[in-house]
Amino acid sequence: MSRKVLVLPGDGIGPEIVAQAERVLNVVNEKFGLGVEVEQGLVGGAAIDVHGKPLPEVTLEQAKACDAVLLGAVGGPKWDGVDMAIRPEKGLLGLRSNLNLFGNLRPAILYPQLADASSLKPELVAGLDLLIVRELTGGIYFGQPRGIRTLENGEREGYNTYVYSESEVRRIGRQAFEAAQKRGGKLCSVDKANVLEATVLWREVMNELAKDYPDVELSHMYVDNAAMQLVRAPKQFDVMVTGNMFGDILSDCAAMLTGSIGMLPSASLDENGKGMYEPIHGSAPDIAGKGIANPLATILSVAMMLRYSLNAAEAAQAIEDAVGVVLDQGYRTADINSEGMNLVSTEQMGDAVLAAL
Amino acid sequence: MSRKVLVLPGDGIGPEIVAQAERVLNVVNEKFGLGVEVEQGLVGGAAIDVHGKPLPEVTLEQAKACDAVLLGAVGGPKWDGVDMAIRPEKGLLGLRSNLNLFGNLRPAILYPQLADASSLKPELVAGLDLLIVRELTGGIYFGQPRGIRTLENGEREGYNTYVYSESEVRRIGRQAFEAAQKRGGKLCSVDKANVLEATVLWREVMNELAKDYPDVELSHMYVDNAAMQLVRAPKQFDVMVTGNMFGDILSDCAAMLTGSIGMLPSASLDENGKGMYEPIHGSAPDIAGKGIANPLATILSVAMMLRYSLNAAEAAQAIEDAVGVVLDQGYRTADINSEGMNLVSTEQMGDAVLAAL
Ligand SMILES: CC(C)[C@H](C(=O)O)[C@@H](O)C(=O)O
Ligand SMILES: CC(C)[C@H](C(=O)O)[C@@H](O)C(=O)O
Repeated sequence: MSRKVLVLPGDGIGPEIVAQAERVLNVVNEKFGLGVEVEQGLVGGAAIDVHGKPLPEVTLEQAKACDAVLLGAVGGPKWDGVDMAIRPEKGLLGLRSNLNLFGNLRPAILYPQLADASSLKPELVAGLDLLIVRELTGGIYFGQPRGIRTLENGEREGYNTYVYSESEVRRIGRQAFEAAQKRGGKLCSVDKANVLEATVLWREVMNELAKDYPDVELSHMYVDNAAMQLVRAPKQFDVMVTGNMFGDILSDCAAMLTGSIGMLPSASLDENGKGMYEPIHGSAPDIAGKGIANPLATILSVAMMLRYSLNAAEAAQAIEDAVGVVLDQGYRTADINSEGMNLVSTEQMGDAVLAAL
Repeated sequence: MSRKVLVLPGDGIGPEIVAQAERVLNVVNEKFGLGVEVEQGLVGGAAIDVHGKPLPEVTLEQAKACDAVLLGAVGGPKWDGVDMAIRPEKGLLGLRSNLNLFGNLRPAILYPQLADASSLKPELVAGLDLLIVRELTGGIYFGQPRGIRTLENGEREGYNTYVYSESEVRRIGRQAFEAAQKRGGKLCSVDKANVLEATVLWREVMNELAKDYPDVELSHMYVDNAAMQLVRAPKQFDVMVTGNMFGDILSDCAAMLTGSIGMLPSASLDENGKGMYEPIHGSAPDIAGKGIANPLATILSVAMMLRYSLNAAEAAQAIEDAVGVVLDQGYRTADINSEGMNLVSTEQMGDAVLAAL
């Protein structure tokens, strides 16, 4: 089987953390004889600087030709002034949309070694392990019509369209039900069906799908209540599924519950298991170039990539185990450091993971 | 001046908690010689049962004729089956919209006596006092077109419209800047301007307004980051302003940070200070009729009403002080109870507040 990986370091801390993740990928590639071929590309601000746009055709062609994409992060103050249409974020959104990566898996896991990092009381988050499945190529992010127009009375109005078709809901729903089957068997679908028609249809489709998954217990929750419940008692959840916009908000909230967003990977999948993998934290321009960023979320994104897109579960497990080992050994980058631990740089953290492998 | 108040108990625990709030209103009315006249009305499920719809004309007329509305809560499983168009929630949304109550003030305050109730670590929330200003009559809640339609290929699609005009943003913006002036002088506007055009315009208008309020420090934050920051370090915020949908989610999240949503009131104001006041918790059908609900959020809503709509700040302060006293005395309803405290019923809590007055 082909195992072509496109690496897109992007902006800010992207290149630093991706460099460490690539070292890890190279080592497991050799160790497990995976035959992974790695190619480099440009996206986001890095692509704007060279090609004048955040997603050049050449990058899109590379991405289409590979089996998986590993992305660092995009964006930064340098490109804050550029036109909305060619902002760095559009590179990310363009990849998601053009590659049909509709299924965004965002695990929020509390590492026992980092239990203190959470802002929640320990007993509420100990052992936290929830998965948010976010729809990624539809909803208000991509809905038409959209824009800013001038009304007859001379004032302007900005507008966007929140839209989901049954088939869009069905395919993300199936992905979520299947994820729940492999985990705790509980799925909570989040909507605002008491106000938004788009989510009335969403709820209907989820209820229909439930018949095909009798082993999964489906529940529904309004998005405002979901935000509350995440803060109040996050361990009540196993898998949550929701639309693009609600998923953006809730997955960041859930990630922050762990207190260590420098640790959390994500996967964005199409219908056939092709995927893009990235840390959920951003480009962190304030610490870029200092060599202090945490590469573990990106390294764990490599593990997800091996498992979901490259059919190499054993190698994935080896990486995840190695991360557990370095945490046990007390290695900490600045974002997860605490009293008595061993503060290391981005590269030293990479070294430690390699050693543990 | 006229001081006509319409009381709409609504559904679930609504009637029980409103009954205690009315007792408190009556006592301050007499004590401070306010000349408040109280009238009763029906909304939500209670109105569906009598009139077949959640917002009967008679209720709307009453609401238009009065200076302030005190509302309990609406909704419950009894009406879950009714048509979307006449759900209990539509009564609430109809009041907001028809009365032009565009400015929703949602304070999230941690009472020192209840510091333990928060799911966050004490040092992160001690002294928490933030105000969310939510736009309440526009955005995706009311945007047209909306609905569920059948596409040419035979499948259905649900759609809603997220829309804000400059003038809509300007009036909620002014309310937020003014609130910040009276508080800590810091305003954080929350949007998703890296993705949604509707919020690009929102941000532009906020920046323009900032020139008129040089004493207020304006910042901007994306909604996903705002959800994170609320969990990570909520005390960084003073006033937050945002649209209807984001405000729904973030205000519930912020409220839950205090751990005691049974304590939190809210105000929804029009251009002239007329307002509707309600606890931010819902109708809690599971405990309705048991006499155990916490009436303090509704009692504190009366205080907000006196301050914002009835020009009776002294009476408002007296109520707020009385609530502080009963907490000091150890009175607790079940939702805020803890070891060694004095567990009381809804009515006993009302008694305690009256005694403290
Ligand atoms: C950068 C931004 C466009 C993006 C999003 O909103 O989807 C990010 O917040 C994310 O969640 O991956
Ligand atoms: C009941 C519901 C329609 C309402 C809303 O979404 O505005 C509620 O959640 C609120 O925040 O007051």
